[in-house]
Amino acid sequence: MRTMKAAVFIRPGRIALEDKPIPTAGPGQAVIRITTTTICGTDVHILKGEFPVQPGRTIGHEPVGVIAELGAGVTGYALGQRVIVGAITPCGQCYPCLDGHQSQCGGKAAGGWRFGNTIDGCQAEYLLVPHAMSNLEAIPDGLTDEQVLMCPDIMSTGFGGAESGGIKIGDTVVIFAQGPIGLCATAGAKLRGASMIIAVDGVAARLETARKLGADVTIDYTKTDPLTEIMRLTGGRGVDVAIEALGTQQTFESCLRALKPGGTLSSLGVYSGKLSLPLDAFAAGLGDHRIITTLCPGGKERMRRLMNVVASGRVDLQPMVTHRFKLDQIEDAYDLFMHQRDGVLKVAITP
Amino acid sequence: MRTMKAAVFIRPGRIALEDKPIPTAGPGQAVIRITTTTICGTDVHILKGEFPVQPGRTIGHEPVGVIAELGAGVTGYALGQRVIVGAITPCGQCYPCLDGHQSQCGGKAAGGWRFGNTIDGCQAEYLLVPHAMSNLEAIPDGLTDEQVLMCPDIMSTGFGGAESGGIKIGDTVVIFAQGPIGLCATAGAKLRGASMIIAVDGVAARLETARKLGADVTIDYTKTDPLTEIMRLTGGRGVDVAIEALGTQQTFESCLRALKPGGTLSSLGVYSGKLSLPLDAFAAGLGDHRIITTLCPGGKERMRRLMNVVASGRVDLQPMVTHRFKLDQIEDAYDLFMHQRDGVLKVAITP
Amino acid sequence: MRTMKAAVFIRPGRIALEDKPIPTAGPGQAVIRITTTTICGTDVHILKGEFPVQPGRTIGHEPVGVIAELGAGVTGYALGQRVIVGAITPCGQCYPCLDGHQSQCGGKAAGGWRFGNTIDGCQAEYLLVPHAMSNLEAIPDGLTDEQVLMCPDIMSTGFGGAESGGIKIGDTVVIFAQGPIGLCATAGAKLRGASMIIAVDGVAARLETARKLGADVTIDYTKTDPLTEIMRLTGGRGVDVAIEALGTQQTFESCLRALKPGGTLSSLGVYSGKLSLPLDAFAAGLGDHRIITTLCPGGKERMRRLMNVVASGRVDLQPMVTHRFKLDQIEDAYDLFMHQRDGVLKVAITP
Amino acid sequence: MRTMKAAVFIRPGRIALEDKPIPTAGPGQAVIRITTTTICGTDVHILKGEFPVQPGRTIGHEPVGVIAELGAGVTGYALGQRVIVGAITPCGQCYPCLDGHQSQCGGKAAGGWRFGNTIDGCQAEYLLVPHAMSNLEAIPDGLTDEQVLMCPDIMSTGFGGAESGGIKIGDTVVIFAQGPIGLCATAGAKLRGASMIIAVDGVAARLETARKLGADVTIDYTKTDPLTEIMRLTGGRGVDVAIEALGTQQTFESCLRALKPGGTLSSLGVYSGKLSLPLDAFAAGLGDHRIITTLCPGGKERMRRLMNVVASGRVDLQPMVTHRFKLDQIEDAYDLFMHQRDGVLKVAITP
Repeated sequence: MRTMKAAVFIRPGRIALEDKPIPTAGPGQAVIRITTTTICGTDVHILKGEFPVQPGRTIGHEPVGVIAELGAGVTGYALGQRVIVGAITPCGQCYPCLDGHQSQCGGKAAGGWRFGNTIDGCQAEYLLVPHAMSNLEAIPDGLTDEQVLMCPDIMSTGFGGAESGGIKIGDTVVIFAQGPIGLCATAGAKLRGASMIIAVDGVAARLETARKLGADVTIDYTKTDPLTEIMRLTGGRGVDVAIEALGTQQTFESCLRALKPGGTLSSLGVYSGKLSLPLDAFAAGLGDHRIITTLCPGGKERMRRLMNVVASGRVDLQPMVTHRFKLDQIEDAYDLFMHQRDGVLKVAITP
Repeated sequence: MRTMKAAVFIRPGRIALEDKPIPTAGPGQAVIRITTTTICGTDVHILKGEFPVQPGRTIGHEPVGVIAELGAGVTGYALGQRVIVGAITPCGQCYPCLDGHQSQCGGKAAGGWRFGNTIDGCQAEYLLVPHAMSNLEAIPDGLTDEQVLMCPDIMSTGFGGAESGGIKIGDTVVIFAQGPIGLCATAGAKLRGASMIIAVDGVAARLETARKLGADVTIDYTKTDPLTEIMRLTGGRGVDVAIEALGTQQTFESCLRALKPGGTLSSLGVYSGKLSLPLDAFAAGLGDHRIITTLCPGGKERMRRLMNVVASGRVDLQPMVTHRFKLDQIEDAYDLFMHQRDGVLKVAITP
Repeated sequence: MRTMKAAVFIRPGRIALEDKPIPTAGPGQAVIRITTTTICGTDVHILKGEFPVQPGRTIGHEPVGVIAELGAGVTGYALGQRVIVGAITPCGQCYPCLDGHQSQCGGKAAGGWRFGNTIDGCQAEYLLVPHAMSNLEAIPDGLTDEQVLMCPDIMSTGFGGAESGGIKIGDTVVIFAQGPIGLCATAGAKLRGASMIIAVDGVAARLETARKLGADVTIDYTKTDPLTEIMRLTGGRGVDVAIEALGTQQTFESCLRALKPGGTLSSLGVYSGKLSLPLDAFAAGLGDHRIITTLCPGGKERMRRLMNVVASGRVDLQPMVTHRFKLDQIEDAYDLFMHQRDGVLKVAITP
Repeated sequence: MRTMKAAVFIRPGRIALEDKPIPTAGPGQAVIRITTTTICGTDVHILKGEFPVQPGRTIGHEPVGVIAELGAGVTGYALGQRVIVGAITPCGQCYPCLDGHQSQCGGKAAGGWRFGNTIDGCQAEYLLVPHAMSNLEAIPDGLTDEQVLMCPDIMSTGFGGAESGGIKIGDTVVIFAQGPIGLCATAGAKLRGASMIIAVDGVAARLETARKLGADVTIDYTKTDPLTEIMRLTGGRGVDVAIEALGTQQTFESCLRALKPGGTLSSLGVYSGKLSLPLDAFAAGLGDHRIITTLCPGGKERMRRLMNVVASGRVDLQPMVTHRFKLDQIEDAYDLFMHQRDGVLKVAITP
């Protein structure tokens, strides 16, 4: 049995590289050899024990690679073809998938999120892809691994936040938190036609990146009260859409307070602890507010669209790759990433 | 100066009939002589001091009447014409109105709700109607006052809850609480094509009315755990849409727990105290949940549509009028209504 | 090799019963033994040579049956289970399917329509079902074959016409032609909350059925000019939604002329010959008109929803089965159906 | 009585400058002194007698100016304030306006288009603005007349074409014809997140402008067959959205032929003569096609949004102003514009 290296969740506080068998593809499945992957904030939640996964699980859900094996019935692809797979892998054939809720595949909350959660993930040399027909997407010629590395998760999620917000041409949009997801939401808001995009964070370098990706105004909350500033910028009107990209009571609540009556709070964060709806900001339920949560859209059609956005040059997220590691060094990569040292945004991991 | 009787908010705990001048219509306004009106749960909140209005304000926002005066520029109507006016009176010409947020007229939360809130209301002999061109709607021949009495508020609100839920043909919908608003939401869910409608309340008579209005299944929460029963009825799937029609943490939370991943919580209640989002039911933000609040849609186009629904016989809400009072007896009517005595659903008040 | 009887397209003008091998299920496929099926207007187009299919093709796309064989990878079903399959059989895994265009599966126009078109259909003793995981749906206990016989095509199509029209509560809707599809569109319009439904046809019995299924007003175009009458009924306003259910220039054009500015023409017909847009009715392109065509939605989730509508008693289409035949008599059934003799609406065919 | 110069439709073939009384503002109206205006393709249709207006009508519907008079009840504005008014002037208070069909104000097709059509327009020194509260919008500080000159019509129309197309992130969009409206639709498609925008025209300079405004690919139809090229570019898939921006059978039909099954034809042109739907491209009605026509959205909220887009620098349409004339020279301006001489795109007219 051939083996490979894989980053495995051992116990809270410990992810370690271990040897595992290289997977083989059953019917409808594929195996891809990973050429580049990355670490997500959710992986850090797993490492910290804040999001439970089974010990022994290979972590990671942002794969870029090459097709190594195609199971029975997987057609239209070739061995050696460069592909990505979304973090979310809908089957396409269950009730929620057929009803347009592909991220909730199978009908269990977040059921479409399998990699590094309910099945082995991609921080490894090889990855077994379920429902390959719905999920493998060829990388267009001329795009590098790093150019498409954000497509499987953060680009899809961040853009999804802008999409779920129902942004209209001429909208004012605020995005609270400018980590990788928030930055992608900022880029997404621009892509949907917002005319004033306000990015809020406490890290100057992230705000600078936000400006490059589309923010018209940035607010450093350590220096300026965001709500006062937002109301000043909007003439007291509030924003049309507020995107939450961190997962805390404070950012959630700030979004709600920043909204105009009739506005939409588009929530991307993974919350822990408690979450409450302040009734003054919620107008006691009379404000025609909308709160929409969005899990990363997946599937090959989504990946195709996102890579087209990259290929068109509309959005360039490659500068978000600030550090590079070999798979062997993944424990160092986690250490850097989880402590947000050295201005890290995203790391590229190559086996 | 001619005077009229009006039910006036004096202080928390006291609404009393007083003499007030009969209003006169300025440009763009109209005065209607009230022929029938009713009391809303929100009026009880005002009476109890839970929703603040200025002392001296005439209460009431559900007018049926006859045009007594038309101000300059109000055309297309005739004195003596029978009309209704929605509880919400959008101007039609401000930014939110032109942007499709008529209930949030003027840009202040619930800004379109003026009657009995920011201007005098209709529990009186006469009512001054602002923005008359947007708001007066003639009653179709053959419909009685009581047949259209629910149109200005609870029918519009309840149907709005079903509409905001985005109900699709074949959906399963639960409505928590079967007071007047919840009953209208039940009727609205049927009108949108839900195939299984589950109504929850603790009062047998209300559940019986719910069945008449469209509920396929009723759950008396004093006898059966609603969530267990809902999961049983849906084979563990959860409902597509859950409508909250009371305004409490418990009903809000139950709605969230009843939802399938990807489902919509359509909130109609006026909340007080605190409101929190239980993170397990909210899937930590990963469940593609949607929470939509809806304030009663108003304006003459809405009233036209709702009266057409009544005229077509699709929905008959007149049986909800369980008690009748003269305006002189309005204090008795409040007493009955706020204590929910004698199976009261809605009262008809006639000057 | 076991054989079965199948109604086969021989050449224009001739469909005949022939012996064919009973199909066997490959991976992802299933075979069902047909217990009831029916004939569709489209089958008549095929018979007449107006819609080309390959000689030798088994006709029919409205199957009700029992699972006879499950191919590899088809799970969650049991042999002997009673099921239906939609006329349209989306794979769920191609780009259009994942993008919400399941009827256009594979990206070819009407690509999801396979049965009796690009593969053998169900006017036979057995049917091979492709993409079984997306398409087999169990019949709820207590529903008969005839109760669900309309679900695979005409109920899904007719309701789809109402859904695509974007009907809102209180809308006025006209449906031109009250054949089986138009009748289902009438029922669908009621299910979506239209408050005035106008059904147009030239056959009194069909108009009577239309009234039973939800039409408030019927117009016999042989006696009354529909457009004059529609404008009278709507006070010159025109209808909000006009549904075309025949596929002719005249009905298409009448729909357009009946519409209010800003209205939606929801087209269900299969057109032949020529189709033109009269520019006066189209307001030279300035009328904010919408023309939406809808191919029968398929897939098991759709079938589940439609059977729930039947189970709830909201809509009862069984009375549309006016005649019954054995598969052996299918040539007689075609003869009756294509000549619309004896008040036929739909026939039930049982092997 | 003070008089002013106004460009008046005399008879087909002749628009001439005449003296007219300066209008005065009745209740709810305003008069603006025009500082800049322009000529639209529709004005040329009027001049040619292809679109009928009453002789004596002042032409023009793209006003930029200064408030000269405010009628009774018009509040929130000041004399001397710089404003624009949309080409379409919804009242905000009629049934269609309250129902979201503001361009169809009053319920007559294109009823919201009044200027230079049913009332006097803005190719004059002064303009009477109806429904001023719904329509006057202050120009943000720092924007010049020419920067906002496209907002009242072509920017609103062109963007409207992109919006009505329902463009999603990653869509492929083709725009047939790159006159002023088509160029704005190209800019609008980019603003909504299309990743491949294909612009078709026969004039090299217009294609070059298209590239500046967002086109990724341009096709000169005099040299290359657009449909062949579109199918090549999309791998045979067809486009998601095709925008028609000329108003001819050929462009309309090409749009339909370029579409994928399930795609949307967003139509902006003003058609004359005949318009037919080729059934092969229309898949006989089975292709889930959508044809949406859009009349220029108006009202002050729309103008506010569009000027915000200009202010943000997202889209710069000022380069479309290729020629400048005094109002005295307007007959020359018409001559240049209607013959499309000298690379004219839009002219600025200043009284």
